[in-house]
Amino acid sequence: MSIAAIVGAGLVGQGWAIVFARAGWQVRLHDVDADRLPEACDLIERQLHALQAHGLLQDAAGIARRVEAAVTLESALAGAAYVQENSPERVEAKRMLFARMDALTGPDTILASSTSSIPASLFTGDLVHRERCLVAHPVNPPYLVPVVEISGAPWTSAQAIARTRDILNAVGQRPVVVRKEIEGFILNRLQGALLQEAMRLVRDGVASVEDIDTTVKDGLGLRWAFMGPLETIDLNAPEGIADYCARYGAMYASIGASQSEAPAWDAALLETLSRERRAALPAEELASRRFWRDEQLMRLMRHKQRSGDNDG
Amino acid sequence: MSIAAIVGAGLVGQGWAIVFARAGWQVRLHDVDADRLPEACDLIERQLHALQAHGLLQDAAGIARRVEAAVTLESALAGAAYVQENSPERVEAKRMLFARMDALTGPDTILASSTSSIPASLFTGDLVHRERCLVAHPVNPPYLVPVVEISGAPWTSAQAIARTRDILNAVGQRPVVVRKEIEGFILNRLQGALLQEAMRLVRDGVASVEDIDTTVKDGLGLRWAFMGPLETIDLNAPEGIADYCARYGAMYASIGASQSEAPAWDAALLETLSRERRAALPAEELASRRFWRDEQLMRLMRHKQRSGDNDG
Repeated sequence: MSIAAIVGAGLVGQGWAIVFARAGWQVRLHDVDADRLPEACDLIERQLHALQAHGLLQDAAGIARRVEAAVTLESALAGAAYVQENSPERVEAKRMLFARMDALTGPDTILASSTSSIPASLFTGDLVHRERCLVAHPVNPPYLVPVVEISGAPWTSAQAIARTRDILNAVGQRPVVVRKEIEGFILNRLQGALLQEAMRLVRDGVASVEDIDTTVKDGLGLRWAFMGPLETIDLNAPEGIADYCARYGAMYASIGASQSEAPAWDAALLETLSRERRAALPAEELASRRFWRDEQLMRLMRHKQRSGDNDG
Repeated sequence: MSIAAIVGAGLVGQGWAIVFARAGWQVRLHDVDADRLPEACDLIERQLHALQAHGLLQDAAGIARRVEAAVTLESALAGAAYVQENSPERVEAKRMLFARMDALTGPDTILASSTSSIPASLFTGDLVHRERCLVAHPVNPPYLVPVVEISGAPWTSAQAIARTRDILNAVGQRPVVVRKEIEGFILNRLQGALLQEAMRLVRDGVASVEDIDTTVKDGLGLRWAFMGPLETIDLNAPEGIADYCARYGAMYASIGASQSEAPAWDAALLETLSRERRAALPAEELASRRFWRDEQLMRLMRHKQRSGDNDG
């Protein structure tokens, strides 16, 4: 049985533990603060039972038994084929942690970081076996949102990228490869582009916060939940994507020219955003709405499993 | 029973006929080419049966009987409370058509255009009752994708906007209001912002077309199918949206600074897009993939109806 070491037992680490254990891997969960481990294991087991209740997995108890607390980093990493690091976003701490992990593992072990903001080149450059180090950035929670962004440093080997892709595919994730180190990788760059336009529309009084959200959830987001934006436009012109670009390129160029300046996320804008969101959802209901969101996400993933709409 | 006149019996007009007839309205379907009407009515009936087969409506035959072909514009508009125009995107033709419709209807009848690209002010300025004229831009097909963008001219009355919003809500759509005339309204501006970043990533070799689509359909698009992008970030920080902006604003500002230039949709980019898309989906499979898309969309809307996830 393959062994995955999860280093850092917060929310992200717990999510990764579920991903690997669900796929039949033996999971060793480690945290620099060993006192966190019992609670983390409890939370993992509770989440597994919630997933089972939604028909998203079977044998939650058996899966939970594959997650083992490892009090020392040494014991976590011994024999691991794959290590996923989830420590706070501090480059110096990651550099030291990766140095220790590099020394404690054989050269074929993949050392992956969950960082969303620090390129692998900033904390792996001095390692003896830096060619097997990379970023594998998940979305929260990874056991429900399958995309993982793989981003290597310039010295990361093609084999390490390919093996990570294979491993993540095998455990049910949807890895994508970021071919050059770039801020925000793919996901946050796409999200950022959309958010900047949303902010512009709010700032300029063109649309309410609610109407922007409606435009996505009852419009754009419906197709994007089972096709990407490029397949969407490929199907939206008779001859495919080049035909679409020929028909609508001038319109998007003209719109694009008015989107060049990123709006300031200043006090006035934040005040508008907060006022409209808190009118729609009072602060005291944020927590329950997060449960609603997770519930919707579980139902949607169950629906996608049944519809087989990831094919093609 | 309320009467809706649908002027222009192509795909968009057929979609609107389904929306109104499904909601119990009497629909008069007109086209400048009256020979198109029998086929349009046939297509509407077939589509209604497909929707029934997916559990999205009942009594397709009864609904189809509420759609009546109207050979003249006069007979289509007589007694209509709401008129939806779907002629080709030519401003001069729309100006002449709206002048006729303005003369043929009482001042309380809403005159709405489906145009995606021509602001209402360009073809309604000279009308006697221009205050009841506006754009109501649907997404195709409107009976599956409920958002409709309402965009008035500067002289469109607040009452006409409010009444249109009420009517569209009553027939099961999700109207949003574009408060100022702006190119692309809301939906295409948001889509354009995301597409421009996707194009940049492809052009710069950062990601494959397939991986960009995966990042959306197995990542961003999952939440966006039931929450908008602003509710998403509102729930992604402990204290809500202002808290999110404070935590991540610097990152998005930095990303935004590298997104200011709209990439050229030039031959080299189109060649890459086409090559990668045609490798994933040969040209001869575009048509069958569109059936697949519509099937997925119907299943997703049925899922959303059952989950009640439009609440809140």
